[in-house]
Amino acid sequence: MVEVVIAGIGQTRVEEHWAVSLRELAFMAIEQAQLDAGGLQPQVLYVGNMLAPQLSHQAHLATLLADFAGLTGIEAATVEAAGASGGAALRAGYLAVASGQADVALVVGVEKFTDVVGSGVEAALATSSDGDYEAIHGLTSTAQAALLMRRYMHEFNVPRQAFAGFPVTAHANGAGNKNAMYQKAITPETYHKAGVVSDPLNMFDIAPNADGAAALVLARPDVLPPHASPLPVRIAGSSSVSDTLALHDRNDPLSFQAARLSVERACQRARISPLQVDLFELYDLYSIYGVLSLESAGFAQRGEGWKLVHDDHISLKGTMPVSTMGGLKARGNPGGATGIYQVVEAVQQLRGQAGVNQIPEARRALVQCLGGPAAIAVTHVLEVGS
Amino acid sequence: MVEVVIAGIGQTRVEEHWAVSLRELAFMAIEQAQLDAGGLQPQVLYVGNMLAPQLSHQAHLATLLADFAGLTGIEAATVEAAGASGGAALRAGYLAVASGQADVALVVGVEKFTDVVGSGVEAALATSSDGDYEAIHGLTSTAQAALLMRRYMHEFNVPRQAFAGFPVTAHANGAGNKNAMYQKAITPETYHKAGVVSDPLNMFDIAPNADGAAALVLARPDVLPPHASPLPVRIAGSSSVSDTLALHDRNDPLSFQAARLSVERACQRARISPLQVDLFELYDLYSIYGVLSLESAGFAQRGEGWKLVHDDHISLKGTMPVSTMGGLKARGNPGGATGIYQVVEAVQQLRGQAGVNQIPEARRALVQCLGGPAAIAVTHVLEVGS
Repeated sequence: MVEVVIAGIGQTRVEEHWAVSLRELAFMAIEQAQLDAGGLQPQVLYVGNMLAPQLSHQAHLATLLADFAGLTGIEAATVEAAGASGGAALRAGYLAVASGQADVALVVGVEKFTDVVGSGVEAALATSSDGDYEAIHGLTSTAQAALLMRRYMHEFNVPRQAFAGFPVTAHANGAGNKNAMYQKAITPETYHKAGVVSDPLNMFDIAPNADGAAALVLARPDVLPPHASPLPVRIAGSSSVSDTLALHDRNDPLSFQAARLSVERACQRARISPLQVDLFELYDLYSIYGVLSLESAGFAQRGEGWKLVHDDHISLKGTMPVSTMGGLKARGNPGGATGIYQVVEAVQQLRGQAGVNQIPEARRALVQCLGGPAAIAVTHVLEVGS
Repeated sequence: MVEVVIAGIGQTRVEEHWAVSLRELAFMAIEQAQLDAGGLQPQVLYVGNMLAPQLSHQAHLATLLADFAGLTGIEAATVEAAGASGGAALRAGYLAVASGQADVALVVGVEKFTDVVGSGVEAALATSSDGDYEAIHGLTSTAQAALLMRRYMHEFNVPRQAFAGFPVTAHANGAGNKNAMYQKAITPETYHKAGVVSDPLNMFDIAPNADGAAALVLARPDVLPPHASPLPVRIAGSSSVSDTLALHDRNDPLSFQAARLSVERACQRARISPLQVDLFELYDLYSIYGVLSLESAGFAQRGEGWKLVHDDHISLKGTMPVSTMGGLKARGNPGGATGIYQVVEAVQQLRGQAGVNQIPEARRALVQCLGGPAAIAVTHVLEVGS
């Protein structure tokens, strides 16, 4: 297989982009990534998107964006895997370059969740669960996460307060990221006083639905200009693994098997152990997802992930920093764009462009996005240096 | 790049599958394809689908189908490119094997268009056009095809009757395909007497929306059992090319540029000329698309494709057989499954399994699906023998 590097990154601020259309939002990220990559011309465009056909009345998005970005004539396709759509689109771009069919691939994630009011977004999001056995009974993604968190607290005798570390860390990191939706730190007291949304989840256990776009330019190393600047980041490992779609079909709902296998395979391909990474961009759509992701990646034993959070191991100065630019909680969650934002942020860290959030000498990052409660998990290992 | 062969095919009959759910329909095709491939175990599943999130309230379809097919743990993603979704999913599977990331890939196209009554399907289909500049004005895909056909008739002084050859050929071929929606030949008189739907398109110029699923097992040749039966079919060339999404943005609406480039690139990769193929499974969603596809593939000069049709060159015994198992017109058009049906049918021809529709000694097929009026075109060259 051909080696694949990330040669360019782009992102818009995550917020409520009411004044910008879907195509314009995507283009803002594409333009930045192309500039950042020194104008490398892509032969393919993959788009990660969850709900544009339902929320923005626009399917066939990849052709539209290739057209709007002045790239008519290139290959184009949209890739969907619920919350992991961004990661799945990246993986498609990775395979296009790794197979030798493309020298340069453009991958863009875009989502507009806030154009629809009321319960429209919740209903659309529910189409990503098992329609016949979950959505139809009114089980939303948030209600499902509440069930998971309650079960976790019960099985392992964990107080609700133990989860505070996730939103507190995320918001502390978001304060240093000018593209984050929320750039303000919160205290544990703010968390403890927040209103309950779906017991035991409170408002700070849930990442906000948002609008945003992020883009990556992938390339074979030999097409980069000599002494390429910025520093190319290698995709050392890439893996996507599915589980049952319905949570009730699993023997052990508290074990994110797909997340575990996906980390194992991505790290195998990169010939590293997960313990050798300097940061972990995990999928903290809910605090409980964050805890289970830490456990499934092997950073904590089953039932003990919450201790990493409680003892502050996950902050920028901790032993395993997560959500280093704010994560889904503070950067915001623009659906199919989220998996691309995670990679863009990891690249910022590996290039040394993370500003006040910089992890000193970060050389290797683990990045994972999930669809549903790890019904699908897409994981990448990114590296710089020799 | 690794060579990729088609080791298994499966398909349901195309019809109104009201009694079968989306997942069951897909599974019927998957099961057949896996049996046909002698039980080869896939590591990835790509799903081609257009409108399940809108029409069946089910997104995240690839994870669902991997789960339902007992393949939990494999990679899974849905690929969407409007009417070319099936072709785009095949291309994703092709790249997964060609890159060396998978030894065996499963690709399934599935669509249920007939569960929704009234104008619901037309409205959903319109989301595949340019939402801000076409769909919002009420321009449906059929109305757009009518504009194209009218312009073609005007520019090249072609009578409406000249298009009869497309539906007549398609229905003649559908009569020999037990999986076709319409298995009854029609006469030119039936065509001439049919009611106008969108002037100048009559009912027989338009392929019917339908339900169906089709599946392919792709593999590296070295993982096949020795003396594999059935005969493996090589994917000798594969290409996907985009054009402007909106028809009004093209300098020449009567030239399907993406279709032309996609045939050129697929044939280049296969090191053949289009004239060396024995059959052409083209995308006859409308008769006018069929004519423009023949011209863009190089089988006729601009403005002269209709003569091939009129002079019966496209029937099973003609110089360039098209829609050999009925095409979209008679087999039916199940959206994201259509591109997979086309390939399944071409494989039947190349294996010598096409029954009364068999083209003697067919060794090489060109297969093309389109999204919108060739806003995207995905083309494959399939081969058997040395």
